[in-house]
Amino acid sequence: MKIAVLAGDGIGPEVTAQAVIALETVLAGSDKLELVYAPIGGAAVSEGGDPLPEATLETARQADAILFGAAGMPGDESLPYAQRPGASLLRLRQALGLFANYRPALLFPALAQASTLKPEVINGLDMMILRELSSDVYFGEPRGERVLPSGEREGYNTMRYSESEIERIAHCAFQTARQRRKRVCSVDKANVLESMLLWRDVVTRVGTQYPDVALSHLFVDAAAMAMMRRPLDFDVIVTGNLFGDILSDLAAMMTGSIGMLPSASLNQKGKGLYEPVHGSAPDIAGHDLANPIASILSVAMMLRYSFDMAEQAERIERAVSTVLEQGLRTQDIATPGQSSVGTRAMGEAIAQAI
Amino acid sequence: MKIAVLAGDGIGPEVTAQAVIALETVLAGSDKLELVYAPIGGAAVSEGGDPLPEATLETARQADAILFGAAGMPGDESLPYAQRPGASLLRLRQALGLFANYRPALLFPALAQASTLKPEVINGLDMMILRELSSDVYFGEPRGERVLPSGEREGYNTMRYSESEIERIAHCAFQTARQRRKRVCSVDKANVLESMLLWRDVVTRVGTQYPDVALSHLFVDAAAMAMMRRPLDFDVIVTGNLFGDILSDLAAMMTGSIGMLPSASLNQKGKGLYEPVHGSAPDIAGHDLANPIASILSVAMMLRYSFDMAEQAERIERAVSTVLEQGLRTQDIATPGQSSVGTRAMGEAIAQAI
Ligand SMILES: CC(C)[C@H](C(=O)O)[C@@H](O)C(=O)O
Ligand SMILES: CC(C)[C@H](C(=O)O)[C@@H](O)C(=O)O
Repeated sequence: MKIAVLAGDGIGPEVTAQAVIALETVLAGSDKLELVYAPIGGAAVSEGGDPLPEATLETARQADAILFGAAGMPGDESLPYAQRPGASLLRLRQALGLFANYRPALLFPALAQASTLKPEVINGLDMMILRELSSDVYFGEPRGERVLPSGEREGYNTMRYSESEIERIAHCAFQTARQRRKRVCSVDKANVLESMLLWRDVVTRVGTQYPDVALSHLFVDAAAMAMMRRPLDFDVIVTGNLFGDILSDLAAMMTGSIGMLPSASLNQKGKGLYEPVHGSAPDIAGHDLANPIASILSVAMMLRYSFDMAEQAERIERAVSTVLEQGLRTQDIATPGQSSVGTRAMGEAIAQAI
Repeated sequence: MKIAVLAGDGIGPEVTAQAVIALETVLAGSDKLELVYAPIGGAAVSEGGDPLPEATLETARQADAILFGAAGMPGDESLPYAQRPGASLLRLRQALGLFANYRPALLFPALAQASTLKPEVINGLDMMILRELSSDVYFGEPRGERVLPSGEREGYNTMRYSESEIERIAHCAFQTARQRRKRVCSVDKANVLESMLLWRDVVTRVGTQYPDVALSHLFVDAAAMAMMRRPLDFDVIVTGNLFGDILSDLAAMMTGSIGMLPSASLNQKGKGLYEPVHGSAPDIAGHDLANPIASILSVAMMLRYSFDMAEQAERIERAVSTVLEQGLRTQDIATPGQSSVGTRAMGEAIAQAI
């Protein structure tokens, strides 16, 4: 089990350190674990000017799985585009062909009151957002800026999807739904965009191969409304890269526990990059304030998806539940007046519970 | 005051009829009002195959303002693209140059409990979403479907913005903010898309002309989260056509009163199209169940924006408040157990109150 650890910027290193401890703890006694650290994001820029150095990419390529922290710091906007930490993550996704992004949006009962939604609307929330991660307007060519004949500037990007790109993510969605409540909602904007009309056609066609899974479709504006109105109605949501970016963050925020949510990004061969949904949170970085749970649960996803070690994954997940039930909280999930612990203390408690 | 009435499909005709009554009532005694009815959407397709017939477009061109109902019915997906009712609305927006879409998201205190957000999160909500309506991936060329060398199909669209398109909507945003709480939040995806990087640059540049207005920027994923987390923090949100489609529906749904929200779409000359934010709601069409208030409040926006008749606009708005305070409810805004009235009864009560 060769794992590339790309901790990155901001709170990335702090939370990743705790995730590594959880991983080592659950695998104690195994000599198979090999961790290879490599710089990415702002940290890599300071070293050599490139947020995704060739050596880091090679480390990621050779690893069986990647544990990613976060990339991006204030002031990044002043860097040339290619040097920005966000760009490094996009290049990594593309270079490794990570096309399937799994983002569970799960309400932790112990934290239900942290949601801004009413309890009766959100209690029991458990949806999986499956976001296509390697195509769409994120990577479409041509793109750039040009000067129009009128002399003014124009910025342009290409939103696009091919049949095979849609097919493979659709299969992931239906297969995931089979292991859950057997419902897929596909989100597009087929009433306006040809790229999304093809999306709907292809998802519908793939759906005929899964007659046991109920397929529905929503336009993205209606989907945002429905998620807000009746979030419990959803099981698996499958959507493109751009809409998935928006809807998965929306769903994560609904749970009130964005510091708690892991994610997995897989390629055709099942290689995966695992990362917390939250970002680099530069405002609290270095102060032992960050919640390490999202990163720790990302390790659980890694064990399950990349190494078929469901039992070990569950041990981590149960340990997280245990410490939450014991009342342990980092500051982001503490209710007003409730005392909280730091990143390290939370990580240690979870390791103990494992 | 020559007003084109394009009632369209589903509940469009029912709610528009009540809005016309409100308009006639508030202008009683004036012989200036001239109403011209024309078909649009599914109704127009049944008549002549075209959801936006040339005669309807001409009526809209010659009018001082347009009152629009809704377009679209189940089964539209089976029609060729150009014949779909949604397409008619897009063509109308483009033909008239309606680039500035104002969508207030306002919580009506009498209906606060209808929101799925907790009262302390949403009480006092009053934001204005300003959506660019005539550019972006909605209209960008090239677009379509092609066959790749591999033999598979690809759907593609072009996301684009020019400086002047961004400038004019930015000016609208800052001017609107001056009449409100003097805060503009511009939403883009400048960390990934060149078209949106230009958006951010231009909005920032225009902002220097309004030093009294505070300007902030959010990426669209972060904006969706922030709207969910702290909706009261927002005053004016300005964004592109696609992101505006999603965020304005999200904001509308947050209020719990989507049947209550009007909108205005203006062009450079101040000509406007006024429409309820809700759609054609075919499931309840023809049953005197629809809430006419969004359409009635759209007339108030029309009086204010197109005819500079703020006093008459306020009379309509006050009449709506009055009947709500009296406890009158259509079924969509009634709490469980509360009795409700039909579309016509609600319209009559508001006309009375005017
Ligand atoms: C950092 C950014 C490029 C990225 C994205 O838009 O995909 C992030 O928002 C995410 O969702 O992982
Ligand atoms: C009907 C559709 C084309 C339209 C849009 O996407 O603009 C609608 O959703 C809206 O927001 O007015």
